[in-house]
Amino acid sequence: MLYKDLDRKTQENLLTEIEKKLQTYKDLNLDLNMARGKPSPEQLDHVTTLFKNVSMDNFMSEEGIDVRNYGGLYGLIELRRVFGSMLKIEPESIWCLSSSSLTIEYDLLSRLMLFPLPGQSKAWRDLDEVKFLCPVPGYDRHFNMLDSFGIKMIPVPMNDEGPDMDVVEDLCKKDSSIKGIWTVPMYSNPTGQSYSEKTLRRLLSMEAAEDFKVLADMAYAVHHLHDDPAEQDPVYPLLDLAREEGHPDRVFVFASTSKMTYAGAGVACLATSEKNRTWLLPSLKSQMISADKVNMLKHARLFRSLGGVESLMKAHAKVLGPKFELVIKAFDEKLGPTGIATWTRPKGGYFVTIWVYPGTASKVYARCKELGLSITDAGACYPYGKDPEDSALRIAPSYPHMDELREAINLFCLVVREQALLKLLEESRS
Amino acid sequence: MLYKDLDRKTQENLLTEIEKKLQTYKDLNLDLNMARGKPSPEQLDHVTTLFKNVSMDNFMSEEGIDVRNYGGLYGLIELRRVFGSMLKIEPESIWCLSSSSLTIEYDLLSRLMLFPLPGQSKAWRDLDEVKFLCPVPGYDRHFNMLDSFGIKMIPVPMNDEGPDMDVVEDLCKKDSSIKGIWTVPMYSNPTGQSYSEKTLRRLLSMEAAEDFKVLADMAYAVHHLHDDPAEQDPVYPLLDLAREEGHPDRVFVFASTSKMTYAGAGVACLATSEKNRTWLLPSLKSQMISADKVNMLKHARLFRSLGGVESLMKAHAKVLGPKFELVIKAFDEKLGPTGIATWTRPKGGYFVTIWVYPGTASKVYARCKELGLSITDAGACYPYGKDPEDSALRIAPSYPHMDELREAINLFCLVVREQALLKLLEESRS
Repeated sequence: MLYKDLDRKTQENLLTEIEKKLQTYKDLNLDLNMARGKPSPEQLDHVTTLFKNVSMDNFMSEEGIDVRNYGGLYGLIELRRVFGSMLKIEPESIWCLSSSSLTIEYDLLSRLMLFPLPGQSKAWRDLDEVKFLCPVPGYDRHFNMLDSFGIKMIPVPMNDEGPDMDVVEDLCKKDSSIKGIWTVPMYSNPTGQSYSEKTLRRLLSMEAAEDFKVLADMAYAVHHLHDDPAEQDPVYPLLDLAREEGHPDRVFVFASTSKMTYAGAGVACLATSEKNRTWLLPSLKSQMISADKVNMLKHARLFRSLGGVESLMKAHAKVLGPKFELVIKAFDEKLGPTGIATWTRPKGGYFVTIWVYPGTASKVYARCKELGLSITDAGACYPYGKDPEDSALRIAPSYPHMDELREAINLFCLVVREQALLKLLEESRS
Repeated sequence: MLYKDLDRKTQENLLTEIEKKLQTYKDLNLDLNMARGKPSPEQLDHVTTLFKNVSMDNFMSEEGIDVRNYGGLYGLIELRRVFGSMLKIEPESIWCLSSSSLTIEYDLLSRLMLFPLPGQSKAWRDLDEVKFLCPVPGYDRHFNMLDSFGIKMIPVPMNDEGPDMDVVEDLCKKDSSIKGIWTVPMYSNPTGQSYSEKTLRRLLSMEAAEDFKVLADMAYAVHHLHDDPAEQDPVYPLLDLAREEGHPDRVFVFASTSKMTYAGAGVACLATSEKNRTWLLPSLKSQMISADKVNMLKHARLFRSLGGVESLMKAHAKVLGPKFELVIKAFDEKLGPTGIATWTRPKGGYFVTIWVYPGTASKVYARCKELGLSITDAGACYPYGKDPEDSALRIAPSYPHMDELREAINLFCLVVREQALLKLLEESRS
């Protein structure tokens, strides 16, 4: 029976029972962490084994560049080709510029603040106001980045196909100070939902400021949880779509191997139109001679030896799949009958989003912390950390061992139920 | 006898003789390069051998961080300690943020443009004008960077102890829009001269704008050409000096292992005061989770296995020393008696600067190019590429094999003599 339909007495009894169970957890002095989307040691060890078989006896790239020396600003073509196959983008449009896509993203925004885009007389820093649309729930580091540049964030609701495009189109039509939107088109952080082709085409065709940009973080482009292609979301060729929809220069695409090889020690890229690349070139040449080409070569050889990225991602899915299943199953069994929460069922990516009983997310976060379980801050997935419903929480099941995860998720479900009951009782009192 | 004292006829005969020799060079269709300060394949191979002996069987840092995963913004303490020993700076003040110091430098300038320093109401971008002092000849990439941010560059002459401090102090006292100076205090690029302690102390104590910054690129901190410490320039502890001279927040120090391990695929750092680091932290957290810690660990272990950086640098000196000797000896023998040029005799670093006959540097550059020898662009070592004397040229002897270098430098000396004679003849005509 749904919690809200229970009488007060039953609610109180349930609460007492849950409190008792939570007390036993408290006595265990747990130290569990489901806060960040980190690969597990098991995944990293697998990658380490694979890297061991990659020969680095010679350091010559396909094009005859000694990767141990200066040069090669755009990165190695053999690696740009790997990213190309992942993103469905021609390698010539892809530059490998860092070990971290976050850094490439930040640097792009920094340039947009400082240097006028082609055809624009002013850089964003010199405009009265710059606003960005932020589909919510979204990625906290994207929001943090915008905030650090003083860009005003406007939350936009997500639906099954991505951001609510009626809202997006309406806002952009009315307000030319809206200069962009942050998107995670594949297995979005934190809901795990992918954008539909229709949503992407609307984003790339709609009326908006001339210098409106779609920043597309393809962090999870190949991060399927299932082997069966029917169970996987498709990657759409974003640069092609942008061209087809008449705004070839609207989109910047980012990706990295942080959740494929090593987190923060992999390789990362930017893909965009020739016009945008030409605009980037002078400041890029001032900033770097090239990113780490030794690591690029090592990665290119790894993927070649695997015959692409697929087999690596299958191995990751073998580790991650059961963790996601465990979480969803626990939610279904322990929260499903109560009617106090809803959650996503992602087919890929690194996160599950759960909407707990409205007004309790920050309490669930605090209570979990008290009991030795770290989860992502309540509100973190919203601009300025403000979830108006105080309901969404991001669950990152990737890092803990299965045993720890089981314990963590059981604890979490108990806390979600406890806080919902407390809130229900408080509501019935007032 | 000095060229200028020769009679016209003798000058003409000499020129004919040189032209004949140059024609034989032309027929060889050479492809020689002394343009950039690149390590030679021999140096890179040596490092590769050393890296092969570094065990990466476990990926745990000294502080128990799995370097294959996220975290550790400041970099690994064991590597910060290595940089600390090189730079005479406490490891706590050093952050390892990239594989390239150039990138760290650019990113710092980018932040200075965008974000107000502590105690300042405006970021540099919001001031009417920002100027930088540029000791000349200097490093072209430093100048390029300033130019890309629209910072106005003011050349300042160098003397034996670094930039002419009378000029520097005078300019800074009069003009508070001068916000900084680019320096390469050790084995400066391109003259190879090091700054004296007195110069450094004057830079760090002088009257200047409150937000005046000394950017110190310690690219060649340990890059001695001689084993004998008496033949080496000393590293001064820049953060200590800044504190002692009453401006603890005035200096930012940069360094990398690009010319120690792999160029652009090594590790790099920033060192500055706590106040400056606190100012940097929010934007840094928005830009990155950490730089590549796998590479950091590999480097830290390499240096530990060598018992520090000294033995590595000795091996490099063994390769580089003879190349510098060859260049200086050629200049002494082939140009010394002519009186048409002067040059530096660096004890370290990657470059020799030669001042060819005034008004001929760009012609020497062009003629060398025509004959198959690439050298650094004439003017490159001056802001906006403008050497008012058209005289300074940067010689980078590190990359070519000894045989190639011998050929290159012989050719170069002939061209320097040819162009001087042409100029002398032209002058005597007018």
